[in-house]
Amino acid sequence: MKKSDVVIIGGSAGAIPAAIACRRRYPEKSVLLIRKEEQVLIPCGLPYIFGTVGSPEKNLIPDAMLKNNGIEFTIGEVKEIDRDKKTVSIAGEETASYDKLVLATGSLPVVLPIPGIDKENVFSAIKDVAYLNNMLDKVNKAKDIVIIGGGFIGVEFADECKKNRDNNVTIVEMLPHCLQLALDEEFCIEAEKVLTERGVKILTNKRVEAVLGNKQVSGVRLADSQELKADMVIIGVGARPNTELAQKAGLQIGSTKAIAVDRFMHTITDSNIFACGDCAEKYSFFSGKPSPTMLASIAGVEGRIVGANLFDTRYHNCGEIGVFSTIIGDQAFGCAGLTERMARQEGYDVVVGETTAPDRHPGVMPGAASTKVKLIFSKDNGLLLGGGVSGGRGTGELTNIISVCIQHMMTAYEVSLFQMGTHPALTASPMVYQLVNAAELAVKAMA
Amino acid sequence: MKKSDVVIIGGSAGAIPAAIACRRRYPEKSVLLIRKEEQVLIPCGLPYIFGTVGSPEKNLIPDAMLKNNGIEFTIGEVKEIDRDKKTVSIAGEETASYDKLVLATGSLPVVLPIPGIDKENVFSAIKDVAYLNNMLDKVNKAKDIVIIGGGFIGVEFADECKKNRDNNVTIVEMLPHCLQLALDEEFCIEAEKVLTERGVKILTNKRVEAVLGNKQVSGVRLADSQELKADMVIIGVGARPNTELAQKAGLQIGSTKAIAVDRFMHTITDSNIFACGDCAEKYSFFSGKPSPTMLASIAGVEGRIVGANLFDTRYHNCGEIGVFSTIIGDQAFGCAGLTERMARQEGYDVVVGETTAPDRHPGVMPGAASTKVKLIFSKDNGLLLGGGVSGGRGTGELTNIISVCIQHMMTAYEVSLFQMGTHPALTASPMVYQLVNAAELAVKAMA
Repeated sequence: MKKSDVVIIGGSAGAIPAAIACRRRYPEKSVLLIRKEEQVLIPCGLPYIFGTVGSPEKNLIPDAMLKNNGIEFTIGEVKEIDRDKKTVSIAGEETASYDKLVLATGSLPVVLPIPGIDKENVFSAIKDVAYLNNMLDKVNKAKDIVIIGGGFIGVEFADECKKNRDNNVTIVEMLPHCLQLALDEEFCIEAEKVLTERGVKILTNKRVEAVLGNKQVSGVRLADSQELKADMVIIGVGARPNTELAQKAGLQIGSTKAIAVDRFMHTITDSNIFACGDCAEKYSFFSGKPSPTMLASIAGVEGRIVGANLFDTRYHNCGEIGVFSTIIGDQAFGCAGLTERMARQEGYDVVVGETTAPDRHPGVMPGAASTKVKLIFSKDNGLLLGGGVSGGRGTGELTNIISVCIQHMMTAYEVSLFQMGTHPALTASPMVYQLVNAAELAVKAMA
Repeated sequence: MKKSDVVIIGGSAGAIPAAIACRRRYPEKSVLLIRKEEQVLIPCGLPYIFGTVGSPEKNLIPDAMLKNNGIEFTIGEVKEIDRDKKTVSIAGEETASYDKLVLATGSLPVVLPIPGIDKENVFSAIKDVAYLNNMLDKVNKAKDIVIIGGGFIGVEFADECKKNRDNNVTIVEMLPHCLQLALDEEFCIEAEKVLTERGVKILTNKRVEAVLGNKQVSGVRLADSQELKADMVIIGVGARPNTELAQKAGLQIGSTKAIAVDRFMHTITDSNIFACGDCAEKYSFFSGKPSPTMLASIAGVEGRIVGANLFDTRYHNCGEIGVFSTIIGDQAFGCAGLTERMARQEGYDVVVGETTAPDRHPGVMPGAASTKVKLIFSKDNGLLLGGGVSGGRGTGELTNIISVCIQHMMTAYEVSLFQMGTHPALTASPMVYQLVNAAELAVKAMA
């Protein structure tokens, strides 16, 4: 029997930071990471395999990250956890014992309960190299691709599948807009415009009722009876926590169908077992309510908390803020915290400050992109609740600045006095720096 | 006599935000901005006129910024302030009266006290369109350009003067390294390497003793007697506060030769007169000691404080953090707060966390640049004191994230749990996101 102080089940965005944080905090403890996959894919990189990056093999998390941090790992499937004996049994291998166990088993794509979904050439975002190579081959050959779901994954797949190909790509989205669960309407409309200009067809307020064809997919039928031709279908309607092992071990499952955890990331049921990442239940930073948001970046934070808390309680999880960014063509979009719509739904009286300016200065600097920032504050006390960004490639880090400000509960007054640095080729002008200007406009509106 | 509630003297990075903040906070108050310049140049854009941007006329702050905010402005030189009558007299024009006066008179390039400095074709970073057009013409014709001073302005001038030109550009710097007053040594060395690869010659530990030539410059002589050929010399050795008007009005001048102000940005001498930007004395965010740092971004924050405080005291200035960024070729550098060297000089026991990773993920994403982040913390309590960045174009906003964390007094523990968003085309991977990873390494080192 293998003996380890810490056993981590999983190999991706939650597992690796947990393992590394453990090694950094408890260098005397041994860590064994057990994962199913021979090679681990970068989860948020999946869509980019199909255009920008070119192959699954180029989108891998290097094992050097484990080796360089003194983390032992083995490839195998854990079939069972024995909580009394504190062991896990690995298929076809010996058993491993643990003092502390971490579940980072991730998520699986949601399978749509519609007829025909199991036909050939219907694909999901499955994190498997062979599967994705087959899918890439099909994308290369397909003439008519229908993407079910216009969230981030659907939109990114659509944009990538169009790249350098003469094909028809159609997104079918149930809601009135693509990206509606993450962005305010005006940003969704902007994103849809860019997608449309890039040749992607978008059908919103539409639901796919059936996948058509014989053995292979030939099209989809919508709820309004319209039929769309398709020789390939990609499903991007979200993911569900992978909790099979946890359930078998009798661990409590929460209301979002993820493993119930406390704020220290212990599972509710067994304080020697921790969970992090997509398989673990999340709570909103704002309301504290269970939240279905799944992001590699959240998994990373949770993994770091788990790693630090394994043998001493050091951190509590303040809840997920939800920080997204993406790019369609050259137009990037980002969102941190609550959108205006979400904030109003939560009952906040909100004040919005928004402003648009080039992300370089003067605006004639090469590569300058008009960049909009919208900040949402609580009217009563000025607290920053969220922000949306659309603009150039600085959008990712700009959105992250908003996230820091949210996480540290800054007000519009504080954001308006933010001491940013500026440079002609790297940022907006200090006079129109969007975050600060938007905050000052909100302060004005609160007066 | 013109009557205004607020008169602002100056037209640039301090004056405009002050005027706008005033209009936003006190919409019923009239604001008159008086400036000398017909056209106002973007201060940090000056070097870029000579390569990337191409002309001074493309590097202007648009007057629309004033007009759109209901700010009256006039072009003229204020000759005198009568503090008893609360008026200012404008050369060749009528007098204007004020209730509150704001001095945002900026800075002037330091004139080196060396023989020959007044010869033809010796230039400084003077914010005047005609002067800069003449200078641009000379840069286009010059074969041998010597730049005195290897700070940001000198380095940026050097890089821009080389662009698309067959010339010799040499930087002469007194200190052991270029950029040494802003960056830690390893970043200076990296910057010097990039400059050298781009064809700029760098002489450090050298002092220019005389400018040679008859009417026109023909070269410079260094203190070690070495002579360098030059048909053009550019001086970039810093700026001094422009306080002539303030001194004439009897306002107290501080130890950095700038106008002495309190934390509310009132001048020490007269609480109806405020000062902001390069002409106003600054204090270190850390030590509270007077600081000679001058930046357009600092001027902007000070201007916003002045604008808000004109008729009610609302904010106090927490002191300047000092946030810089620049780019040489495609390699960007940034720094916020204290460098490791500065922190040690201030007596801190420091812990450094540093890490390098691509700024996109996977690293094969087009445009990915290896990006290094170095964070400096106080060992005793984990407080973030400063950070340096070198990498791609995200460096500007990454440096700004460090600045938010400093301004809000975050610790390594807090930074290590930062909830950033990540995206393959826009940021580093969540698993190696540099700020978080560097913070966690520092936490490890503090244990």
